[in-house]
Amino acid sequence: MTQANFGVVGMAVMGRNLALNIESRGYTVAIFNRSKEKTEDVIQSHPEKKIVASYDIASFVASIEKPRRIMLMVQAGPGTDATIQNLLPHLDKGDILIDGGNTFYKDTERRNAELADSGINFIGTGVSGGEKGALEGPSIMPGGQKEAYELVKDVLEEISAKAPEDGKPCVTYIGPAGAGHYVKMVHNGIEYGDMQLIAESYDLMQRLLGLTAADMQKVFAEWNKGELDSYLIEITTDILTHQDDQGQDGPVVDYILDAAGNKGTGKWTSQSALDSGVPLPLITESVFARYISAYKDERVVASKVLTGPDYKFDGDKAELIEKIRQALYFSKIMSYAQGFAQLRVASNENNWDLPFGEIAEIWRAGCIIRARFLQKITDAYGRNEALDNLLLDEYFKDITAKYQQAVREVVAIAVQAGVPVPTFSSAIAYFDSYRSENLPANLIQAQRDYFGAHTYQRKDKPGTYHYSWYEEK
Amino acid sequence: MTQANFGVVGMAVMGRNLALNIESRGYTVAIFNRSKEKTEDVIQSHPEKKIVASYDIASFVASIEKPRRIMLMVQAGPGTDATIQNLLPHLDKGDILIDGGNTFYKDTERRNAELADSGINFIGTGVSGGEKGALEGPSIMPGGQKEAYELVKDVLEEISAKAPEDGKPCVTYIGPAGAGHYVKMVHNGIEYGDMQLIAESYDLMQRLLGLTAADMQKVFAEWNKGELDSYLIEITTDILTHQDDQGQDGPVVDYILDAAGNKGTGKWTSQSALDSGVPLPLITESVFARYISAYKDERVVASKVLTGPDYKFDGDKAELIEKIRQALYFSKIMSYAQGFAQLRVASNENNWDLPFGEIAEIWRAGCIIRARFLQKITDAYGRNEALDNLLLDEYFKDITAKYQQAVREVVAIAVQAGVPVPTFSSAIAYFDSYRSENLPANLIQAQRDYFGAHTYQRKDKPGTYHYSWYEEK
Repeated sequence: MTQANFGVVGMAVMGRNLALNIESRGYTVAIFNRSKEKTEDVIQSHPEKKIVASYDIASFVASIEKPRRIMLMVQAGPGTDATIQNLLPHLDKGDILIDGGNTFYKDTERRNAELADSGINFIGTGVSGGEKGALEGPSIMPGGQKEAYELVKDVLEEISAKAPEDGKPCVTYIGPAGAGHYVKMVHNGIEYGDMQLIAESYDLMQRLLGLTAADMQKVFAEWNKGELDSYLIEITTDILTHQDDQGQDGPVVDYILDAAGNKGTGKWTSQSALDSGVPLPLITESVFARYISAYKDERVVASKVLTGPDYKFDGDKAELIEKIRQALYFSKIMSYAQGFAQLRVASNENNWDLPFGEIAEIWRAGCIIRARFLQKITDAYGRNEALDNLLLDEYFKDITAKYQQAVREVVAIAVQAGVPVPTFSSAIAYFDSYRSENLPANLIQAQRDYFGAHTYQRKDKPGTYHYSWYEEK
Repeated sequence: MTQANFGVVGMAVMGRNLALNIESRGYTVAIFNRSKEKTEDVIQSHPEKKIVASYDIASFVASIEKPRRIMLMVQAGPGTDATIQNLLPHLDKGDILIDGGNTFYKDTERRNAELADSGINFIGTGVSGGEKGALEGPSIMPGGQKEAYELVKDVLEEISAKAPEDGKPCVTYIGPAGAGHYVKMVHNGIEYGDMQLIAESYDLMQRLLGLTAADMQKVFAEWNKGELDSYLIEITTDILTHQDDQGQDGPVVDYILDAAGNKGTGKWTSQSALDSGVPLPLITESVFARYISAYKDERVVASKVLTGPDYKFDGDKAELIEKIRQALYFSKIMSYAQGFAQLRVASNENNWDLPFGEIAEIWRAGCIIRARFLQKITDAYGRNEALDNLLLDEYFKDITAKYQQAVREVVAIAVQAGVPVPTFSSAIAYFDSYRSENLPANLIQAQRDYFGAHTYQRKDKPGTYHYSWYEEK
């Protein structure tokens, strides 16, 4: 029997597509699934492929050449632990397990440490791109032992997406243990922000300007030709062309319920930022925007109880659309500045030495947030690897200077018109806070010292102080 | 030897003051501290008091009448577990431990369950009011066994603050196990929001209108006579009267560094809301505002790199001040609506049956967020115990209708002037989202279904759908 070059556990759509992707690069792939039906289905659908199917874990492991490279594409959580426990008795020192699920990075840290005791390498990798990306080329964010990465690098580079700018594979070594899954988590948080920003733009055009889906399709198509060029704008454009498939007249988007779901990765990003003391307001507002959307029934009731302003926009429509475009780009920059600041803090906290420029580079293709814009981030870190915040880079400094007036006007109009723009307004608040030499937190420190004797520092000299607030003046 | 009626472990300032408070109501109090110096200091400072000091844990426990009532006022975290372990061998079934620290509610749930196995009752209670409150009367939020609460109720009611409106003690049974500490956590989150809202008002008056600390002292003093009447506005007024004590001219607040600290309870509130699917943007923005304030050095650099708008306010100053007052009250309502919505979800998730109206009632005195305004919340739950959101109550509906124009104008001006108002703008975004029958989350669901086949629901009929986005049209 031919020894397989690579193994994949888990034949749900992501695992199956990754296995087919690997096979398509000339490798023989061993596959295994907890229930045999899915494995049989892969074999029957692809009789011509170099796939070795096993129906028990021992045969599966035995069918792979050493050191074994086995990718786990199972449901993140206890399922991953169970799979590892089943594999472990059959593995040898030096084998490499690669978890490609949407795993919380702390679980990856734990598993990496536990397996290291048995001499098994453990790579936790983000894989972004959905089903299609898994099959045709995803963006891959692996973290774990560097020497283990070197043994899987060839395969990961071959199966990954290639950046349209320079053909570079969208994979790079991210860092030790949990680093890859952490970066994937922040990628997903950024994805939440991007989607909410597009949704607010859409809402403004619909509510303020009365644009139809067809009108907006043209706007997004136009935007996608410029600096906003990205997968999410592209699919928004495409979505708006699709008519209903359930017998109603008009575009399907008009019939979709406005109650957004989530799988928790945006929430994790916010919670981790909260733990690390990193300001991450934009992504967090986008998570809360999904939550409030899910309160559909309450909102229907509230819409009949709570009144809004009486406002009619009577300015130039085309001008406002261009301002919304600038506001969207400006706000997107704030979101990425926050996300990369979070990566920097996490890198320092965990001694990960994250390659910020390369992270932006491997997001240029394959993943959901792929965008022309990411090259600007890579360029910025190329100019200064130690950049504290993207906003301090010359490109971002110039473009935000140029676009800030638009976002200010759009937010002012939206707020007066009663159209909610939680992430647009959070973006400008972040920009104005970050560029403020002085914030009113001095008053907060005074209050904390007043009621809790928490002490404070001073602007004019070092040291820690407590004021005797209650003594007679 | 006289048996003490009550024991207190931990003689740092909060424990010491609580012990003195309890003693002042006619009880004999046993005290214990890990190091003897603090205990000796209490005894020496108060030789006349009915205090029984012990220097080993066995004597301490033996000095208290059964069933023993022992309050733990030690540093939250491992210190609490260590104290419990030291006490445990000396306790008897039916004894009651009361943890008065700022404990994370899940730790309280765990300890309550662990101790229940030994027949020991465990009450986790929020205590708010700082040092002064502990001595003179705090607001107390106890959770644990109902029958154990009945045995400590008399003492807690006597030592608690009394509401100025009706003299009611600021303590009530909150619910089982972690309920008391959860409610205290949300109290603290609300405190973060209140403080940030005041800070933004102060910043607007300073930056837009050029008001000095002395000018603003008059404004806050005036505000404190009306519907904003509260402890935090009162101390803000007082803070602004205090001159520097380090040799500089002018008010001390002008020399305090604008880098806000935190003890983590605001962060917990946001993280818990994220876990429970509750939109809590205002408090979360206030946590992030503290974080961004702490990046003082980076902000100083950024202030020289990033430019802002050229804006000069030339309207009527007094009118804008009144609008800021209305914006502050409006935003405060949004914050409490979010916090109480979080309490409702937590109550349902944990089967706590939280008494929402009474919670607002016991916050009317003693605690940091005490305010005349809280009576409005109690009244609202009095009208409808099952209220989904405070905004649906008649008082809040009317006042937000009346004040919304002011917050819209203030945010529009601030955004155009470049003064950051993260919580003011978050407040109006929440209001406008909550009262929107339709939000643009339909587009987000379309995107999720497009790239991840996550499916969606429809507005026109029940069921779950997936659209074939990639098929030929």
